[in-house]
Amino acid sequence: MKIALDAMGGDLAPASTVAGAVEALKKYTDIELVLVGDQARIEKELAVLGHASVPERASIYHASQVVDMADSATDSVRRKKDSSISRATELLAKGGAEALVSAGHTGALVTAATIRLRMLPGVQRPGIAAMMPATDHHFLVLDAGANVDCDPEHLLHYGIMGSVYSREVLKVKNPRVGLLNIGSEPNKGNELTKASYKLLAAAPIDFIGNVEGHDLFSEGVDVVVCDGFVGNVMLKSCERLAKSISGWLRSEIQKNPMRFAGGVLAQSAFKSVRRRTSAEEYGGQPLLGVNGICIKAHGNSSPKAIKNAIRVAREAVAHKVNPLIVEAISQHDKIVRDATINGKSAT
Amino acid sequence: MKIALDAMGGDLAPASTVAGAVEALKKYTDIELVLVGDQARIEKELAVLGHASVPERASIYHASQVVDMADSATDSVRRKKDSSISRATELLAKGGAEALVSAGHTGALVTAATIRLRMLPGVQRPGIAAMMPATDHHFLVLDAGANVDCDPEHLLHYGIMGSVYSREVLKVKNPRVGLLNIGSEPNKGNELTKASYKLLAAAPIDFIGNVEGHDLFSEGVDVVVCDGFVGNVMLKSCERLAKSISGWLRSEIQKNPMRFAGGVLAQSAFKSVRRRTSAEEYGGQPLLGVNGICIKAHGNSSPKAIKNAIRVAREAVAHKVNPLIVEAISQHDKIVRDATINGKSAT
Repeated sequence: MKIALDAMGGDLAPASTVAGAVEALKKYTDIELVLVGDQARIEKELAVLGHASVPERASIYHASQVVDMADSATDSVRRKKDSSISRATELLAKGGAEALVSAGHTGALVTAATIRLRMLPGVQRPGIAAMMPATDHHFLVLDAGANVDCDPEHLLHYGIMGSVYSREVLKVKNPRVGLLNIGSEPNKGNELTKASYKLLAAAPIDFIGNVEGHDLFSEGVDVVVCDGFVGNVMLKSCERLAKSISGWLRSEIQKNPMRFAGGVLAQSAFKSVRRRTSAEEYGGQPLLGVNGICIKAHGNSSPKAIKNAIRVAREAVAHKVNPLIVEAISQHDKIVRDATINGKSAT
Repeated sequence: MKIALDAMGGDLAPASTVAGAVEALKKYTDIELVLVGDQARIEKELAVLGHASVPERASIYHASQVVDMADSATDSVRRKKDSSISRATELLAKGGAEALVSAGHTGALVTAATIRLRMLPGVQRPGIAAMMPATDHHFLVLDAGANVDCDPEHLLHYGIMGSVYSREVLKVKNPRVGLLNIGSEPNKGNELTKASYKLLAAAPIDFIGNVEGHDLFSEGVDVVVCDGFVGNVMLKSCERLAKSISGWLRSEIQKNPMRFAGGVLAQSAFKSVRRRTSAEEYGGQPLLGVNGICIKAHGNSSPKAIKNAIRVAREAVAHKVNPLIVEAISQHDKIVRDATINGKSAT
């Protein structure tokens, strides 16, 4: 299985991406990696890691440019045709790889993927599905930042795509889909959520209605649907809060010797909670809705996070989730069409 | 100083509101409280607390109806004219109290306050200012849920009002105002934030540009501006995550005797962090922009949270923040007018 890695994408690239690639090659013996980016810099990083030549099952696909965080998404794709993101999506589109992993500019990745790979039939906008921890399971939040000005139909598709991904890849039997909102009653929310509620309620998914911020991180929901702006803010705020709480605890524990002793004894408990809330462990978030497998890794991915993002790409290839998404969307469209023909409104 | 309390508002009312009122009366000897709601039920709760009659410095203002969470905001105000929220805002509007505290239906409170009290001159929409913890200070987030479909001008006003409140009530010398966004660069965001950025950059406040979820809970920002949908989701998600982390830690610590011993020794450190992240401590969130002092308390406020919300109301009365908001908005409007007359664009 061949996976393309945007070697120049992310705050710590190419050091972190190349190191993550080497870790992934060791751990997953059934994959080949194409490192897309500046050949000289990639080779230099490989040398730092002690590789005189490109490791077995790896190759380099040269791209001379890098998308900066300050670039606008569309400009970067139009002007930087030789960027690592552009070349990597091109490679995927031409069949030179089965999946793509990038920790680079989200907007550029989404735009390049939408243009080069095109959307899956019936889907209007891609959505990033991020995994978050709950007490006894994980839940997906989508969109986590691909599409910041959403229509109700986009949210409907996120519900359907998230449901398929949750069932097929995360093995949740009957994924419960909730609409992220500011109240539990159907009449609550902004214009977008009020309209989306009706569409989701009529979709062939297990829609459990509105969920609030208070309902997350516990039992009860497997797929949380929201627009990309809200999802991105929520995700990043929560990531940051988890880190801050860990820091606040550390400094409180250091305030006196008794607390400190307690902290040492309970250390493994802290570690376990930190692992649960660490984005590094999840590694990569699939960009659902495009005709190809794209995994977005965290902007400041460590080598471990890159390795885990490659793991997510590998799982996505194995599960062949895209044909099932197409089927689910077309099944839903048929229900709406039939209802219209029969003179009933589907919503 | 006379403060009206919506005795029927909140999940735990009237038991929790009445108990909180009694606590507040004990603690703040300069206040009088008007308990607005069902007289018989309020008296019953007072009896449970051991008061044979209405305590000194308290009175009851009877209202026969209660706004349910399932009621729509506008309907509740139109149809339930004798609800505790309607009567309490009426009392405030007529000068029968200097401030109002409610843990009830947010939408109903916002609608009733907007209709009865009217907006401050120059302000278009009210915003709820919620306080959140950072490492060495607190920051305000507004809007936290009053206005879920925002225009750029609403966000501009949130920046100005939050800045005034932060300076006057929280005693922050030069409040740094940030726009909650999904990227740090000015060109990032959705249609709303892109347009709002320009307005905020031209306002007479210390606008530091975009802040992301990652930038919260640390140093660097005092007032975080966002639309009420995003703010509400972020706030509730973070509140819930903090509780979940605390629960996860507790269950990890109970997994073996060594961890458990450590947990006992470090107990006071946990408590200190829990207090920092507890909404109960903050108690109440001012509804800024209306011509009167309204404090929104958490829906499931405990007596302690109600007492703290009354404290926030008391502080707001003392600080006379509304005339200063009017002045700041009018100062900004003058800058825009002058710039237009001089043929320059203010943005």
